Amino acid sequence: MREIENLQLNAQGQLQHFLSIEGLDKALLTEILDTAESFAGISSQNVKKVPLLRGKTIVNLFFENSTRTRATFELAATRLSADILSMNIATSATSKGESLLDTIHNIEAMQVDMFVVRHSLSGAAHFIAQHVAPHVSVINAGDGQHEHPTQAMLDMFTIRRVKKQFTGLRVAIVGDILHSRVARSQIQALNKLGAEEVRVIAPKTLLPTDVESLGVSVYYDMEAGLKDVDVVIMLRLQKERMSSALLPSESEYFKCYGLSEDKLKLAHKDAVVMHPGPINRGVEISSKVADGTQSLILQQVSNGIAVRMAVLSMTMQHRRESI
Amino acid sequence: MREIENLQLNAQGQLQHFLSIEGLDKALLTEILDTAESFAGISSQNVKKVPLLRGKTIVNLFFENSTRTRATFELAATRLSADILSMNIATSATSKGESLLDTIHNIEAMQVDMFVVRHSLSGAAHFIAQHVAPHVSVINAGDGQHEHPTQAMLDMFTIRRVKKQFTGLRVAIVGDILHSRVARSQIQALNKLGAEEVRVIAPKTLLPTDVESLGVSVYYDMEAGLKDVDVVIMLRLQKERMSSALLPSESEYFKCYGLSEDKLKLAHKDAVVMHPGPINRGVEISSKVADGTQSLILQQVSNGIAVRMAVLSMTMQHRRESI
Amino acid sequence: MREIENLQLNAQGQLQHFLSIEGLDKALLTEILDTAESFAGISSQNVKKVPLLRGKTIVNLFFENSTRTRATFELAATRLSADILSMNIATSATSKGESLLDTIHNIEAMQVDMFVVRHSLSGAAHFIAQHVAPHVSVINAGDGQHEHPTQAMLDMFTIRRVKKQFTGLRVAIVGDILHSRVARSQIQALNKLGAEEVRVIAPKTLLPTDVESLGVSVYYDMEAGLKDVDVVIMLRLQKERMSSALLPSESEYFKCYGLSEDKLKLAHKDAVVMHPGPINRGVEISSKVADGTQSLILQQVSNGIAVRMAVLSMTMQHRRESI
Repeated sequence: MREIENLQLNAQGQLQHFLSIEGLDKALLTEILDTAESFAGISSQNVKKVPLLRGKTIVNLFFENSTRTRATFELAATRLSADILSMNIATSATSKGESLLDTIHNIEAMQVDMFVVRHSLSGAAHFIAQHVAPHVSVINAGDGQHEHPTQAMLDMFTIRRVKKQFTGLRVAIVGDILHSRVARSQIQALNKLGAEEVRVIAPKTLLPTDVESLGVSVYYDMEAGLKDVDVVIMLRLQKERMSSALLPSESEYFKCYGLSEDKLKLAHKDAVVMHPGPINRGVEISSKVADGTQSLILQQVSNGIAVRMAVLSMTMQHRRESI
Repeated sequence: MREIENLQLNAQGQLQHFLSIEGLDKALLTEILDTAESFAGISSQNVKKVPLLRGKTIVNLFFENSTRTRATFELAATRLSADILSMNIATSATSKGESLLDTIHNIEAMQVDMFVVRHSLSGAAHFIAQHVAPHVSVINAGDGQHEHPTQAMLDMFTIRRVKKQFTGLRVAIVGDILHSRVARSQIQALNKLGAEEVRVIAPKTLLPTDVESLGVSVYYDMEAGLKDVDVVIMLRLQKERMSSALLPSESEYFKCYGLSEDKLKLAHKDAVVMHPGPINRGVEISSKVADGTQSLILQQVSNGIAVRMAVLSMTMQHRRESI
Repeated sequence: MREIENLQLNAQGQLQHFLSIEGLDKALLTEILDTAESFAGISSQNVKKVPLLRGKTIVNLFFENSTRTRATFELAATRLSADILSMNIATSATSKGESLLDTIHNIEAMQVDMFVVRHSLSGAAHFIAQHVAPHVSVINAGDGQHEHPTQAMLDMFTIRRVKKQFTGLRVAIVGDILHSRVARSQIQALNKLGAEEVRVIAPKTLLPTDVESLGVSVYYDMEAGLKDVDVVIMLRLQKERMSSALLPSESEYFKCYGLSEDKLKLAHKDAVVMHPGPINRGVEISSKVADGTQSLILQQVSNGIAVRMAVLSMTMQHRRESI
């Protein structure tokens, strides 16, 4: 893990790449949140733009499709005045590690400053960060079932804005923990930032075997798991899990692990509800809850831009060697 | 219709959304044309750019493909210095009204200022305008078989530039009126702006049953219909109408409802010819006419940018509540 | 050929379009290289941008897909501060010359300043240049098996940066000469710029019948052809040539015409290796050579941006009549 830590940080311990929550400490995560706070106002200004990254080239390198994450990264870059090069690259064309590297080195040769990478393989962003030139930064926009650190940080930002601090917070993450890179990043971020307790609520088939080692309490029963929590994070249910026989029907799933108004009442009365989106109404969450007063789902989207602006500007500023 | 009127206008009666010609009065249509006139020069300047919408985010939300309309909206936004987010969303992914709304609310949460919407369902732009936050404007770039108001206004702009005024003008619209959102918008705009007479020329199978109620004279015979008109607007023939047995062959169609040089001679000697494009040469219009001196087809394209700049800037200026 | 010469140049003999190396003289090619040199520093500045083409609209009109060429043209335009309109047009939609012209005239009517065209048909860029308005410039980004002049010029720029001059240079181009627009442009550029000798090395099946008339020496044997050359340009092997029975297996091809370290030793000790990319490792070039100290492959990519900035700015400046 040492290696990964070093990879993300420059010699001064500053953020050079943003690849995973793993390897970053509380101070650095807090710095990201504080920087995001300073950017949060820009998107509601009349002129939603600062010239911070003018003349920089950011490459959106999406090997896996993602309308929302891509759009928020693009807006974050645009509002920092960077130039964006969007490349949609079918994974097939770069199935061999060797040709992925050729692709990266070729784009790098166009004197770009940053790669925002989404890839279906765990570790893809790390792999790229290991091989780029020192002046190029890499941001992980989701790699396989590994991590999705900007999503986790926008969730942390959203929680902090409402709850002010992490100390004493009980957070439940509900759903397909096994396949979720989002959950993996959230659990680490919550533990590092000092949450009182992180619970995961899921059927056994959707939990990793070593899940307790991540620093969570495990609940198979949603009613028990939601008791007194301050934050409920619902995960998106990938519908293909159904057909793969890991799960019963959608309505059966909703009955056991969906968030209804009734179940939400078991949580703390000030509890907030989050979801990385897009939501499956009636599957993992009821419409009443998703659209209710406790829901922060749309704030998460807004906050995603501020957090991504923070990460883009911090890594750009701390590149090992400016060209 | 009252409701729709209110929806497009803010409390001061100014353009807040641009959804349909229906519900707007002559003064407002004229204001759009006058504003477009002020923008018409920009695209021929050396630096084709004004900073009017700098730092605003305009979302191109095209659920239906359209190279030309999309390109002119994009250029209009670019020349006003706005930032553009282009989203191609397959209709299938949002087939339920509920998930279309989720899509909209999610993008809106990215603190965008405007949606330019094209959708295969009539009323889609209205539906979206009813549900967006007060500071967001919606532009209809074509909804099903309902309206295509920016196309109609660029046509009006093109006519006014050549004919100076609408008073006394006889205009014939020829072709598939039944399925044409363009015709529906044009007919209303021409009537509101004071054209002397609006004629529709088409076979019965391509006319709505209540067509006279739109305020037009109906001609099944092209020779009779073209007599003494000042403007001939040809509609694009969707080739799928052929296979659906609504129409005979292409050559048969051209013989009856195509615009040849001979037929054009029946119109007023100063008559101009228009077409929303892309044209089917030899089907609804002959090449000689399309490329002839009376044709305004390419001017329509140029004017589309000025008119769209007008609509973008007017609605942006009149949003109910600036954020 | 006279006609083509005139087409590329304005009345003062300056570059108005950039369509082919054919028809341009040494002075003009040298002017492109010198201009590119002045742009080469911009991409490594902190703010990679000059306002030279601010408010100009450049249309990327790619009828054929090309991630790399398209990206470098887009970055070149962005770093000159131009606005870019990207249009992906399936060749099928414009299979008839007539409708290609309609497409062009329509986009031209949007008051754009330049077309960057890639098309699978030889002569497409010339055809378009013959039909655009006088103030519009056309850049050939590859047309069929005819020419790819910006690729050739970035190769010349790369050679000149390392070798300082063309006088006395022996250059070998290896591989599928028959189907290569790149080779066709390179051969002409090298001859015009004064290279001592241009050799082509290929099996007979991959050579045009009249190849000597291009001004090259022909080698069927790679060992003989590489002897004492200063520059080795490897061409990409289109894998479909294999299945079409023009060639034996990949490994067989590599044995005869692939560049290994051993074969490279036959060239001059300071010889450099180039390849337009993307490379097929182990087919036309070994990884050791591609990644070795003599390889300029990634410099070619970087230089592509400077050369394209040069061509965009020169043609824009010399348009026959500014609007």
